[in-house]
Amino acid sequence: MKLGGIEAGGTKMVCAIGDEQGKIFDRAVFPTETPESTVPKMIAYFQDKGIEALGIGCFGPVDLNKKSATYGYITSTPKLAWRFYDFAGAFREALKVPVGFDTDVNGAVLGEVRFGAAKGCENALYITIGTGVGVGAYINGRLLHGLMHPEGGHIFLRKHPEDTYEGCCPYHGACLEGLASGPAIQGRYGRKGAELAGREDVWELESYYIGQAVADYMLTYSPEKIILWGGVMHQEKVFDMVRQNAVEFLNGYLPETSLPKDMSQYVVAPALGENPGIIGAMCLGMDAYLMECGKNL
Amino acid sequence: MKLGGIEAGGTKMVCAIGDEQGKIFDRAVFPTETPESTVPKMIAYFQDKGIEALGIGCFGPVDLNKKSATYGYITSTPKLAWRFYDFAGAFREALKVPVGFDTDVNGAVLGEVRFGAAKGCENALYITIGTGVGVGAYINGRLLHGLMHPEGGHIFLRKHPEDTYEGCCPYHGACLEGLASGPAIQGRYGRKGAELAGREDVWELESYYIGQAVADYMLTYSPEKIILWGGVMHQEKVFDMVRQNAVEFLNGYLPETSLPKDMSQYVVAPALGENPGIIGAMCLGMDAYLMECGKNL
Ligand SMILES: Nc1ncnc2c1ncn2[C@@H]1O[C@H](COP(=O)(O)OP(=O)(O)O)[C@@H](O)[C@H]1O
Ligand SMILES: Nc1ncnc2c1ncn2[C@@H]1O[C@H](COP(=O)(O)OP(=O)(O)O)[C@@H](O)[C@H]1O
Ligand SMILES: [Zn+2]
Ligand SMILES: [Zn+2]
Repeated sequence: MKLGGIEAGGTKMVCAIGDEQGKIFDRAVFPTETPESTVPKMIAYFQDKGIEALGIGCFGPVDLNKKSATYGYITSTPKLAWRFYDFAGAFREALKVPVGFDTDVNGAVLGEVRFGAAKGCENALYITIGTGVGVGAYINGRLLHGLMHPEGGHIFLRKHPEDTYEGCCPYHGACLEGLASGPAIQGRYGRKGAELAGREDVWELESYYIGQAVADYMLTYSPEKIILWGGVMHQEKVFDMVRQNAVEFLNGYLPETSLPKDMSQYVVAPALGENPGIIGAMCLGMDAYLMECGKNL
Repeated sequence: MKLGGIEAGGTKMVCAIGDEQGKIFDRAVFPTETPESTVPKMIAYFQDKGIEALGIGCFGPVDLNKKSATYGYITSTPKLAWRFYDFAGAFREALKVPVGFDTDVNGAVLGEVRFGAAKGCENALYITIGTGVGVGAYINGRLLHGLMHPEGGHIFLRKHPEDTYEGCCPYHGACLEGLASGPAIQGRYGRKGAELAGREDVWELESYYIGQAVADYMLTYSPEKIILWGGVMHQEKVFDMVRQNAVEFLNGYLPETSLPKDMSQYVVAPALGENPGIIGAMCLGMDAYLMECGKNL
């Protein structure tokens, strides 16, 4: 079965053709300009490929409430051209196939649950530490939406006693994103993360915040697997430091019998490399197909 | 249909007989001593009442993993007499009926979802601020267990800049429970919460922490309803102050279209008064009955 997937990001749109086994056959990337200039190119890419469904993992905020008049829209994004744009609708109308729609990080966690590091889990998280901090949540066997969709990147944290940086989140100052995103590193030290590779103190502080957040997520979501990715995690040593900080924050509170025996198998990089988002998008397409056409199978 | 329910707490065991409509016919309370002295009295209470199933909402930590050898046990509790006690097993063996088992707060949220303030919700939380802080989570139409069960009362928070209290959680110092539980109030001010009713600063600080936690839970769980209860919430004015603080912490981040229009209908007291826990326990019993006997209906 041929499926289309879109990983819709603030800087680029990744489009791909694949199948329900998580295979990718073809891929194209378009810069994110305006709906008027970008969407027709994407539609043209999919038009003659014979896909039976399309899935979209989209930058947010988005409306995921199927009862809402603006379901499938990007809502109050700071990217003004895309504000209240009917993203899912545009593709459904042009391609006349079932369209699945969710956040980029929910797409990514779904990809990893179906084909990657969280295979078989009923509860898993995908956390990306990049320009922003995003959390995709697959809980009780389904993607989590709820009142809107999780925005776990903005939780409030205990400040490190020696950290004087006030945080860069325009809404919350020192929330997780404000303290630990790529721009936060740049704001605190005046240089990009990639240029600070040798500075141990930088990654210790970074791991203090990410590890603290991981502990919070363990306490709230009780996930079976936590997948960590995004530009900042290209500093590979940070994985182990995050695991260690999470354990130190929990400080023996979760009973040993229920804690993961091996943290290095619990907090992990994606198994799908750079592809969880686009493979997850195709999974969203597959699910939309089953929902709409399943009765005829 | 006659159902039994147990709300198993650290100081008392509430036992009740009711039905699948959330009605309570009879109730008895036993002090929590040891399994040897307390459990036989509870069994005797249920023995001749003709219940067809029993549900237990239990103080934690508990083992909820049905594949585990210690499923249904209380695990590493500081109450030594109850440590690794097979709570569910004792009742199943004595009463020979299906037994449902979960945490006390998961029981409470289930009661409120079926018959109370969160009726019809797919995603709801029950937060109790008392001797400890507990969070029950009903997510994607089911109680949340995951790796173990949520322990959302221990999340880490942004400290109020003028609060010098180091927190009373033996594991985390200044986690939510360490900063905002009843004992935290007593530790900070040297007097019990009930005696501090007139001290505005006390409740402002309290609401700062509970409101911050509510904002965190909105960002992570994206619930449709948040139910707040426990001894500390007997200070009724705190409800409105918590709502206000939650909105201030979010600071416009969640788009207006998806925020609850009326916070006073979103963060609420239980609709079942003092009974969400015991009614929820009977719901757990009902669910266990359907799981085990449903095929014969
Ligand atoms: N090797 C690296 N070490 C530390 N930080 C990095 C590295 N590479 C990229 N980053 C940071 O990650 C952020 C970009 O994250 P990324 O996940 O690649 O993109 P986006 O979040 O925009 O989709 C930037 O702030 C960048 O400085
Ligand atoms: N009216 C009140 N105002 C403030 N705090 C109170 C009040 N009543 C009880 N508390 C506090 O609540 C805690 C007990 O919580 P409760 O929910 O009643 O029991 P538990 O958590 O032990 O099941 C105690 O620390 C007590 O000081
Ligand atoms: Zn923020
Ligand atoms: Zn704690």
